[in-house]
Order: sequence, then structure tokens, then C-alpha cells
Amino acid sequence: MTESGATDGTRTDGTPGERAASREGAASTAWPDLAGRLVPAEGGGHEHVLPIRVYFEDTDFSGLVYHTSYLRWCERGRSDYLRLLGIHHSALMGPSAGGAPAAFVVRRLEADYRRPARIDEVLEVRTRIAELSAASLWLAQRITRGADELFRVRVQVVLLGADGKPQRLDRLLRPALDNAPNGPSD
Amino acid sequence: MTESGATDGTRTDGTPGERAASREGAASTAWPDLAGRLVPAEGGGHEHVLPIRVYFEDTDFSGLVYHTSYLRWCERGRSDYLRLLGIHHSALMGPSAGGAPAAFVVRRLEADYRRPARIDEVLEVRTRIAELSAASLWLAQRITRGADELFRVRVQVVLLGADGKPQRLDRLLRPALDNAPNGPSD
Amino acid sequence: MTESGATDGTRTDGTPGERAASREGAASTAWPDLAGRLVPAEGGGHEHVLPIRVYFEDTDFSGLVYHTSYLRWCERGRSDYLRLLGIHHSALMGPSAGGAPAAFVVRRLEADYRRPARIDEVLEVRTRIAELSAASLWLAQRITRGADELFRVRVQVVLLGADGKPQRLDRLLRPALDNAPNGPSD
Amino acid sequence: MTESGATDGTRTDGTPGERAASREGAASTAWPDLAGRLVPAEGGGHEHVLPIRVYFEDTDFSGLVYHTSYLRWCERGRSDYLRLLGIHHSALMGPSAGGAPAAFVVRRLEADYRRPARIDEVLEVRTRIAELSAASLWLAQRITRGADELFRVRVQVVLLGADGKPQRLDRLLRPALDNAPNGPSD
Repeated sequence: MTESGATDGTRTDGTPGERAASREGAASTAWPDLAGRLVPAEGGGHEHVLPIRVYFEDTDFSGLVYHTSYLRWCERGRSDYLRLLGIHHSALMGPSAGGAPAAFVVRRLEADYRRPARIDEVLEVRTRIAELSAASLWLAQRITRGADELFRVRVQVVLLGADGKPQRLDRLLRPALDNAPNGPSD
Repeated sequence: MTESGATDGTRTDGTPGERAASREGAASTAWPDLAGRLVPAEGGGHEHVLPIRVYFEDTDFSGLVYHTSYLRWCERGRSDYLRLLGIHHSALMGPSAGGAPAAFVVRRLEADYRRPARIDEVLEVRTRIAELSAASLWLAQRITRGADELFRVRVQVVLLGADGKPQRLDRLLRPALDNAPNGPSD
Repeated sequence: MTESGATDGTRTDGTPGERAASREGAASTAWPDLAGRLVPAEGGGHEHVLPIRVYFEDTDFSGLVYHTSYLRWCERGRSDYLRLLGIHHSALMGPSAGGAPAAFVVRRLEADYRRPARIDEVLEVRTRIAELSAASLWLAQRITRGADELFRVRVQVVLLGADGKPQRLDRLLRPALDNAPNGPSD
Repeated sequence: MTESGATDGTRTDGTPGERAASREGAASTAWPDLAGRLVPAEGGGHEHVLPIRVYFEDTDFSGLVYHTSYLRWCERGRSDYLRLLGIHHSALMGPSAGGAPAAFVVRRLEADYRRPARIDEVLEVRTRIAELSAASLWLAQRITRGADELFRVRVQVVLLGADGKPQRLDRLLRPALDNAPNGPSD
């Protein structure tokens, strides 16, 4: 199976999420950890873990990782966490998303840079839901290298419709979270 | 006027800072606003203003600007503000920097995303010093589009030596700020 | 004047290009060189010149500029060249673009990296039209530092409609080129 | 098999390469495919395969992947291919690299963009050595989505010393290639 069905935004069988999930069938099987893993968290519930390799593109002339790279990695962590919950950006933006196209947008960031990462290192992005209300989601994310915490951020995201208005987030996320492996995270 | 005439009170002939400045001589003359401008700030002192164009690279599939682009632009603003004060990254990292090589590193960010920017728009990054202590500098930065504020961030930076230890920042910045056009900013 | 009219995609007065141009009114006046300049080229016609500053984001741990940064800069050069010809990405993608939304897409690149650039340097991106046919545009671009050529690329771009099909390019570009300052470039 | 057992025929105890490899011990075990895989290639020898997920950061306002993202992904593919051969950027740049610090630098790119990728898709970067001479390495890389080829590039890289001079590449690569699983690739 190829992903060549991926550009078909007109089919009406299945939810957008189901179509997005089936789209990556063969690839997901071949690379089972590509979207990271949901694991039990200390204190109950689950957290999402995504491995990250530091490449040339992530570093700068100081020899360390550039400060926005940690934030790009956290965005990958958020995307893959949602993906494992069955929520796909392509489906939310798609013409048959069961509503207006919408995309997640960052509203606020509070980030602490504790230790620098360097080229070639393997890191992990750890993502937990900190707070979910009707129209806003707060995530607590950490980047670790082995036992060391390098970076910590609290991020507020909203789901913005094409009309620029925030959409209900809880209706999208609550059912997915209730069905997550290892139980709800908050 | 080139940037080599900038407000550096600490240089003597042949320092890395001077060499860095002279290196861009002709280019600075040809593009006089390339590093932005120091302008009087409301409430006294000065602020630095840098124009930004939104290009393909800054946007994402949602049609809006990607959230780390605002932070890259603010980093440009900080770099050019320091540049107009006579402080150059290349000189700080150089082997003859009059000390160990050092680079500015972000320690903390607190960012608010208020309105989205889009392709082709012209924005301005406005940078002020909020607080300067011996080893830490807090900057208050805003990104505006005309009269609208799109983004606001408070950033803490330190000057990290090659040995991983924070260097004195005030000795580098205080003389430069005291000699800045429009007076000190804090 | 603010750019707050910018999000209005529904007005019908003026062409999309005119609206895009007026949108940046105040900003363009304040920063007259922000989109670079059209200058007479050796051998006749014109070329577009855009200054570039090397920032943290452009470099990598080797101390040199990361290889895709030159290509991002060339994309800025192409965008600003088109902008000075009156062609705006936002207008091409807009709902009232007088046709299906469309965007420029790269088809082929042939790039030579001759000398590395480094943090703080001022470079220039020089863009010329090498060949224009009905559906394809070849550009010849160089990045220089003073008299030194650092990078050279030939890029083929097409204008892709939302339906994934190439659009006519010559009808868009030919009139703009014929009216360009310093005459047509090819 | 983890990467720490990788196919480095040249290391002796305590080289920078070994230290780089051991540094990621636990992480490599936890995420066995993080650096991709060496697989038998059609026509003999091997090729390297690295899976790639398309994230927000890779796309632009056109809804498609930005053109330099494919090149960043190919750089990841080259880095991980070398990694599985036992060659680590951090070791090459390290102060005890058994020679002057050095880094791989791109000299020439010839890239064809055939079909666009989109958010959420899973792609694969496939890397083969096309030609290895004393001071230059040509790689042939393709990005595929299932059976579809989206992108193809030929890249020439050299190993540049801190003095700006190309280093011998064959002495570094030849022994590693001769010991690679599935035999030499060229």
C-alpha cells in the first residue's frame, strides 16, 4: 500500500481521523516508534515520549543547539501526542473535517533553558496535558538527555478556525483522552 | 556613516570588535538600515527597531506564521541592537576576543502570541533592555504590524563562555549603553 | 496607517497586486530598501539585489552557514524581485486573485557552494531571469560578499494551482518585466 | 542490535568515535531505529533508509512542504548513514579527533522536486554513495512516499578542516564502508 491515496480529500467513508490514520498504514508498521510512545507517567496517567536526534540544522555557530530548536522539537512532541490520540492536523485542515478547517495555534510559551544540547545527541521530548478547558489546552513539556533535564516549557494552544475564531477543544480532546492507553493524563 | 562609527566606548584599535565592524564597511554604507535603528522610546531612553518581511520560510501550512519564526525575528532584533551598540557575535567568539570565546545564550522566554502574521507582511521588532545585572540581561521585545501588536516576549540571556560558565555582562554592555544615541535605555 | 486592512480578502476595488502593494504603504516608506533594489545588470537589462545579514539561525555548529540558508536567502531574493515587479504571493493565494489560488513552487535546483559565509557578515543576493517560457521560469542567482562570490544557483520555478496543475507564468510575468525599471532582464 | 555496536572497523579504545557512540548507549537501545537502517539495495551493495515525519515546521503557507525541508531531511539521512558506519560529527569536530577539527560541507547540489509532500505524511530518505574519491564524496538521495518518488538529489560533500582546507575523505570512509552490513555500496 502506498500513501498515494493521501491527496484524496473528497472521500466520505470514515472520519477524517480514520482516513488520516489509514493513510500511513505501511509506513507506521515499518517504523513503529516514529510517533513516539504513550507511557505511564509518575503520579498516574500517561505522558508522551518522542526521541529526537540533534542534527546540523538544529545547532548554531556557538556549537550549541539554537534556542528555537527546542521549541520545534516540542511542537513535534505535541503533534505526535495528538496523533497517537487519533487527532491529525491534515484531517483538521481538510475540506471534509466535519466543520470549518482549523489548526492548532500557540498562544503563550514559558520556557526555561537549563543545559545545552549538542550535535549528535539523542534527547527525549516528554509531553503531558497540564490543563484542558473548553477552548484552551496547556501542555507541560520537558526535554531530557538521559537523566538530565535540558529544557522545560509550558505551552498554551488553541484550535483556530479559518475564520480566526477559537474552536471548542474539549469536545475534540476529551473522548480521545478518555480512551488513551494508560488512562487519561489529567 | 557606517556601522563602524557605532557607539562602542570600550574598543581600542585593532580589537575583534573593530575588525568585525570594519569588515562590513561597504555593505553598511550601501544598505544603511540593514541593522535597524535606535529610536527614542516612549517614557525616555531608546529602543531598537528592526523591520522584518514575512517570507515563505516563516509560514506553515495553516497559512499563518510558524510560532518559532517570531522568536527567530526577536533574536535578529537582539543581535542588531547589540551590533548598533558596537557588540558583535563574531568578535565575542573570536580567538582574540581578549578572553575566552563566548556567545549569548537564552535562559528564559515568556512569550504571548496575540495576532497572527501572514506572508508578505512588513513587521517591526522593537527591543528594549528591561533589566541588566552582572551576569544576566532581560529584554522586552514586541513585534508590531502598523499600530497592532502581534507578539510580545520577555527574554533572559546570559553570555556563556566556552567553558560553559556565564561571563560578566554588565562590563560589556554598560559602557556601550551609556554612549548610545538617545541615552541609556534603562 | 496600519496594515489592518491586510486581512480583508473580500474587497473588490483594485487588483490583488494593488491591494497587496497598498497594504504595506507606511512600512515601505519607512524602510525603503526592505525589498532590495532593481539595478542595471552587466550586459544589459536589470538584476535584483537584496542584502542579507547572517544571524544565529543561519549558522551551524561547524561555525559556518548551514547549507540550506543560502537557498532560503535566494527564495527571499526571488520573492522580493517579484514584489518589485508588482507580483505578491499573498495576492496569488488570495480568494480574489482572479483565478484559482496559486503559489510558486521549486522544480529544480543546481547549486554550487564556493566559499563559506559566517555569523554577522553582510551578503547580497543577486537575481536575474535566465529563461521564461509559458509555464516555467529559470532564475540565475548568486550570493556575494563584497567582490567574492560565495554561492551560485540556477533555480526552476513553476506556478502551481490549488489543483496541483502548473499555471501560465508568462502572462503574469511578461507585462511586469516589460515595465520594469532598467528594462526587461532577458 | 543497537548503534553502539555499529560497524566501525577503525576504532580503537577511547577514540572520539567510540566515546560518541557510547554516549548514546541507553537512548539507542530504547529507540533502535532512530538512525534509520542499512538495507540491501537493488543492484547490490546497501543503501541507508531514514523515516521522516512531516511537521508544521516543514511546511509553508502554500499548504505544501517548503523546498529546503527536503534538503534538511537529506542532510539527516547523510548524518545517520555516516553514524551507522561509525562516523560521528561530534567526534570529527572534537579537540581530540586525532587531527584538526573538521566538518562535512556541501559543495554542490542537483535537486529535482517531483511531487509535493504535505503535513503528517511519512516519507523515507534513501541514501547511496554514488562516488568516493580522495577528497570528495557524491551521494545519490531520494525521498519516497510509499511507491512514489517525491524528490531526488545528487550531493557532493567534502570534509573541511578548521583551516578551511579539504581533508582526505577516503581514509575515513573506505574502511567503514568495507565493513558495512550488506557489503560496500559502490
